[in-house]
Amino acid sequence: MKSVLVVVAAITGLAAAMPAAAQFQKPEDAIKYRKAAFTVMAAHFSRIGAMAAGRVPFDAAAAASNADIAATMSKLPFAGFIDGTSTGDTRAKPEIWTNRAKFDAGATKMQEELAKLNAAAKSGNFEAVKTAFGAAGQTCKACHDDFRKE
Amino acid sequence: MKSVLVVVAAITGLAAAMPAAAQFQKPEDAIKYRKAAFTVMAAHFSRIGAMAAGRVPFDAAAAASNADIAATMSKLPFAGFIDGTSTGDTRAKPEIWTNRAKFDAGATKMQEELAKLNAAAKSGNFEAVKTAFGAAGQTCKACHDDFRKE
Repeated sequence: MKSVLVVVAAITGLAAAMPAAAQFQKPEDAIKYRKAAFTVMAAHFSRIGAMAAGRVPFDAAAAASNADIAATMSKLPFAGFIDGTSTGDTRAKPEIWTNRAKFDAGATKMQEELAKLNAAAKSGNFEAVKTAFGAAGQTCKACHDDFRKE
Repeated sequence: MKSVLVVVAAITGLAAAMPAAAQFQKPEDAIKYRKAAFTVMAAHFSRIGAMAAGRVPFDAAAAASNADIAATMSKLPFAGFIDGTSTGDTRAKPEIWTNRAKFDAGATKMQEELAKLNAAAKSGNFEAVKTAFGAAGQTCKACHDDFRKE
């Protein structure tokens, strides 16, 4: 069973999710963890959004730093979506567990787009950052529409 | 004023805290952010602790991965300790703002010890990991004793 999980983790790129069940003492710990990881990711992602939208001036160094952190954070939350965590202090929809392949594909897509945003931010090209931010934002929305309660 | 902040951030090594006041829309956003960053850091740090204490077998790859994430996370929470965030949904003591130099020194010390733990974990030497984990844990405790309410 463990080797199956390793293979699945390697395929999906969700290595951090690998020994997931063993990583949390209680279901609520897993819920708290994944929400915290999303909170940190969103804080840094939204700072790039403020630049992309023209609400704050483009600062290439700040964009690169925030994109780097957001890309790193994008790998973390999915380890928290273990069995037994569909209820409690969470807006996770049960569809995460009944349509896991789609959920995992959405997670991978988001991670890929944040990696692209990170590359764009490192280039210092504002237009590239705006484009990559928009694409990454679409992956957030797609998953929230399908897998997060209002 | 901005250049003063840049100099201060460079000196303290808390670069992520630099344009802190501008990074959060509301005080509660800063509180939520710093707590989330600590939550993620603690989750990964505690997994190394479980190995150090012998509760789970030493897994060098897992220790290295968790130490890397914990060290990365250690740089983040302090950006959230901005003025106006001593009250609300937080256990932060007012001493953070009245004895900031000590608080910042404690933060820097913790970041240094987590960097050492990260290096120890990468070495794969269990004894080195245990020693570094203990030293890092002391920096958590020191700050909590002084700056966090029960």
